[in-house]
Amino acid sequence: MRHDHLLSANQLSRDDIEAVLDRAATIADDPPDHADDVLALLFFEPSTRTKMSFDTAMKRLGGTTVDMGSAEASSVKKGETLADTVRVVEGYADAIVLRHPSEGAAKMASEFVDVPVVNAGDGAGQHPSQTLLDLYTIRENAGLDDLTIGIMGDLKYGRTVHSLASALTNFDARQQFISPESLRLPRSVRFDLHEAGAQVREHTDLAEVLPDLDVLYVTRIQRERFPDENEYRAVAGQYRIDEATLADASDDLTVMHPLPRVDEIAPDVDSTPHATYFEQAHNGVPVRMALLSALLGGEDR
Amino acid sequence: MRHDHLLSANQLSRDDIEAVLDRAATIADDPPDHADDVLALLFFEPSTRTKMSFDTAMKRLGGTTVDMGSAEASSVKKGETLADTVRVVEGYADAIVLRHPSEGAAKMASEFVDVPVVNAGDGAGQHPSQTLLDLYTIRENAGLDDLTIGIMGDLKYGRTVHSLASALTNFDARQQFISPESLRLPRSVRFDLHEAGAQVREHTDLAEVLPDLDVLYVTRIQRERFPDENEYRAVAGQYRIDEATLADASDDLTVMHPLPRVDEIAPDVDSTPHATYFEQAHNGVPVRMALLSALLGGEDR
Amino acid sequence: MRHDHLLSANQLSRDDIEAVLDRAATIADDPPDHADDVLALLFFEPSTRTKMSFDTAMKRLGGTTVDMGSAEASSVKKGETLADTVRVVEGYADAIVLRHPSEGAAKMASEFVDVPVVNAGDGAGQHPSQTLLDLYTIRENAGLDDLTIGIMGDLKYGRTVHSLASALTNFDARQQFISPESLRLPRSVRFDLHEAGAQVREHTDLAEVLPDLDVLYVTRIQRERFPDENEYRAVAGQYRIDEATLADASDDLTVMHPLPRVDEIAPDVDSTPHATYFEQAHNGVPVRMALLSALLGGEDR
Repeated sequence: MRHDHLLSANQLSRDDIEAVLDRAATIADDPPDHADDVLALLFFEPSTRTKMSFDTAMKRLGGTTVDMGSAEASSVKKGETLADTVRVVEGYADAIVLRHPSEGAAKMASEFVDVPVVNAGDGAGQHPSQTLLDLYTIRENAGLDDLTIGIMGDLKYGRTVHSLASALTNFDARQQFISPESLRLPRSVRFDLHEAGAQVREHTDLAEVLPDLDVLYVTRIQRERFPDENEYRAVAGQYRIDEATLADASDDLTVMHPLPRVDEIAPDVDSTPHATYFEQAHNGVPVRMALLSALLGGEDR
Repeated sequence: MRHDHLLSANQLSRDDIEAVLDRAATIADDPPDHADDVLALLFFEPSTRTKMSFDTAMKRLGGTTVDMGSAEASSVKKGETLADTVRVVEGYADAIVLRHPSEGAAKMASEFVDVPVVNAGDGAGQHPSQTLLDLYTIRENAGLDDLTIGIMGDLKYGRTVHSLASALTNFDARQQFISPESLRLPRSVRFDLHEAGAQVREHTDLAEVLPDLDVLYVTRIQRERFPDENEYRAVAGQYRIDEATLADASDDLTVMHPLPRVDEIAPDVDSTPHATYFEQAHNGVPVRMALLSALLGGEDR
Repeated sequence: MRHDHLLSANQLSRDDIEAVLDRAATIADDPPDHADDVLALLFFEPSTRTKMSFDTAMKRLGGTTVDMGSAEASSVKKGETLADTVRVVEGYADAIVLRHPSEGAAKMASEFVDVPVVNAGDGAGQHPSQTLLDLYTIRENAGLDDLTIGIMGDLKYGRTVHSLASALTNFDARQQFISPESLRLPRSVRFDLHEAGAQVREHTDLAEVLPDLDVLYVTRIQRERFPDENEYRAVAGQYRIDEATLADASDDLTVMHPLPRVDEIAPDVDSTPHATYFEQAHNGVPVRMALLSALLGGEDR
C-alpha cells in the first residue's frame, strides 16, 4: 500500500485491496521478520476479537505489542485528550491500532502522529481492517467478481456494513440489502454507493433474494435500537436464520457474520457447509499480518 | 502426555503425572523452543498467580501469549456464548488456557475446538495444573510414596483439594482430612476416593494427626460460606496455624498452601523451615512449562 | 549502578545518574540482549504512560513482560498482602516494577524479595525513573550545569517534583519554585533541599522569574485538592501558560511537563520551539532501557 494510515475503506483502491489479500494468502508460510517492531493497542471501547486478532497478527510477525489497557485504568480518566495520548504513544511504538467511540477519532489521531494509525472502529464510522478480512473470505469462498451478495440486519448503525458496501464498489458485485424499514442504510451511504455506480437494491424480505445469493452477510440487530421490546422481538425474529430458512438457498451459499452473534444465526447452521463465520474470524490473522507488514514497511527491508 | 486437553486431575495416570514432573525438573536448563507458538489466556474470573504463572511459563518457552482481558471488557458482555468465543480464539492460538465460573466449562469448550484446552479452574470443579505443581512440590520435599498428608480447611468447596485428593490415589499416600463439620469433603468426592482404594480418614481437630504428618496442606476458609459472622470466626480460628501450633509437628513437616492466604497461616511460620508455599507457587512455572510443551508437541519437533 | 533496587531519587549519586543517562543516549543503537529476562508489571493504580513505557523498554531490550492486570481483577481483592504478592511474583520474574497507592510500598516490597524492585510511584512519595527521564531531557536541551529551572504548580503533593528537586541537588542548579501559597513545597522537602546545599527560592508569581529560566517544569494542579471550586479556578488560572505568557521568556526556554496535562499548558504552546513535553515522554523508553539493563545485569553478560 502507498498509504501511511488505514482510516477508512473508502481510501482503498482495487489494487490496494488485492495487494493485501494476495499477501495474506501466503504470509503464514513465509512471514517477514518484524522482531524489532512494537505495535501499540489503544482500545477505548471493549473488544475481544479485533484486539486479540491484531495482537496475534503482530506476534505471528515476530513483533511485540504494548497495550494501553482499558480506558478506565488509564490517563484518559485524568482528563487527557486523545491528541496528547497518541503523541505520547508514538514515542513508544512503530504503529498504532485505535478503537474509539467517536466517529472520526482515528483520522484526527493520524493528523498528530508520524507513525501509521489503523482505525479499528470509530463509533458508527468505519472498521476497514474488518472489511479486508471480509473481502478475503468472500474471495476465497465465492470470488469477488460476478458476485451477488445479500447484506442483512442493522444496516443503519453497522460500521462493518458501511465499510464493506463501500469497498465492494471496486468489484463487479450486486449488493442486495435486507433490513426492516427502520434500519435501512443511511441516506448518505446510499448516495455514495449510487455515486460510485454500485449495483444496489433494497429489500425487507430475505425470501425475495435468497435463491440468487452467492454470499449472505448477516449482522446483529441490537435491542437498544428499539424503544419498545415487542417491536424489537417482532423485527429481530424476521432477520434471524436457521437451517430451515436456508432450504431455498444455493448449495454454494456462503453465510458470513462479523461476530459476536447473539441469535441472528441459529446453532444448527454451524454444522452446515454454508457456515463460514468462524473461518472469517480466523482470516483476521493473516489479513492483519499482511496489513501491518505493509504499513510497517516489512517487505522492503 | 497422550492427551489432547488437560481438563481434570482424574484423567491423569501415575505415568502421566511422573512424565510431567520429570520434565519440569530439568526444563529450565534445557527449554524447548516454542517461538512459533501462541497461547491464549481466557480468564472469565479474576486470577493473579495462575494467569501470571501460565504467562511466564509460555514466555520462558520462547513463545507468546494473547490475553482476552477481563470478561467485562470483552464480547462476552455483548452476549456471546463460550462455545463461540473459543471457536474464534482457536483460529488465533495454538492452545487455550481457560478459567470460568461454571463447572464443566473447560470440558464443554474442549468439545468445540481442535487446539488443546487447559482447565485453569471451573467453578467448584477442577484445577488440574495446580495439582501438578502441588505434586511436584510434595515430591521434592517429602516424596510421593509412603506419604502421610493432612489436608485442612474448606474441603467442601475447594477445587484445589478435590483435584489433589483424586491425583494422590495414584500413589501410596495416606490422606488425613481436617475440617469443621460444615466444610467436610462432598459425599461424591469421598465416594470416588473410596472407589479408588484411597487410604482416607476425616478429623475435626488438627492435633489428632499433626505429629504423624509429612505434609500439611492448608486452604482458605472463606467468610462468605457462613451466614453468621460469629460462627465464621469461631471456625476459622480453629483451622489457623502459627509457629506455636507447629511445636508438635515433625521437624521435616512441609507446610503448603495454594495461596492467596488471608490469615490461615500466621506470618511467623514464613521464616520456619516448614514454610513451602512460596516455593510451591514458584514451581508453577517449570511445571506449566512442561505441561504446555507436552500439549503443544514441543518435544517432538 | 551498584544498587539492587531503585526506590527513591535520594539514593542516586551524580555518578549513578550520569551512568544511566550516558547509557540511555546510545542504547537504542546497540541494545543489550535480554531475551531470557522477564519483567513483572505490578500496577496497583491506573497508569498509561509509565506502564506502557516500561513495557516498551523491556520489549525493545528483547525481553518479555508479565502483567498482574488491575488490582480489581487480582488476588488483592481476595485480601492478599503486598508482601505475599511480591514473594510469589519473584518466582516468575527477574525484576519487578511496582506502582502502589501507599507511600513506602516499594521499599517494603524490596525487603521481601531477591529480585530488583523499581518504584514506579508510591502515593505522594517518589517516582525515581520519572526523575531520570526528566534529567535526561534537561541534559539534552539545557544542560545540567549552570542551570536555572522553574518548577511550577502543585509542589505540595507532586511526587514527581519531590524526586526531581532532590536529584537536582547533585548538579549546579538554581531551583525556583512557583506555586500558590496553599501548594508550596512540604516543609520536610524544603528542609532536605537546604541540608543538601541546594540553591532554592520560592515565588507565587511566574513573571518574577520567567526571563531567567532555562527550563520551566509545569505540573498539574488537581481540582480535588481544593474544597471550593471557585478557589480552584482562581488559583489554577494563574499557573496556566500559553503562548502569550511565554513572550517574556528566553528563546531557548525548554518547557516540560510530566503529563498527562489537563489545561496547564494551552495547545498553542505545542507548536512553539519551547514545547519539550512529548520528547520528554518519549525519553522514558531509552532511559528505562538503560535502567532495566543495569538492574538486570545486562551489560555484564
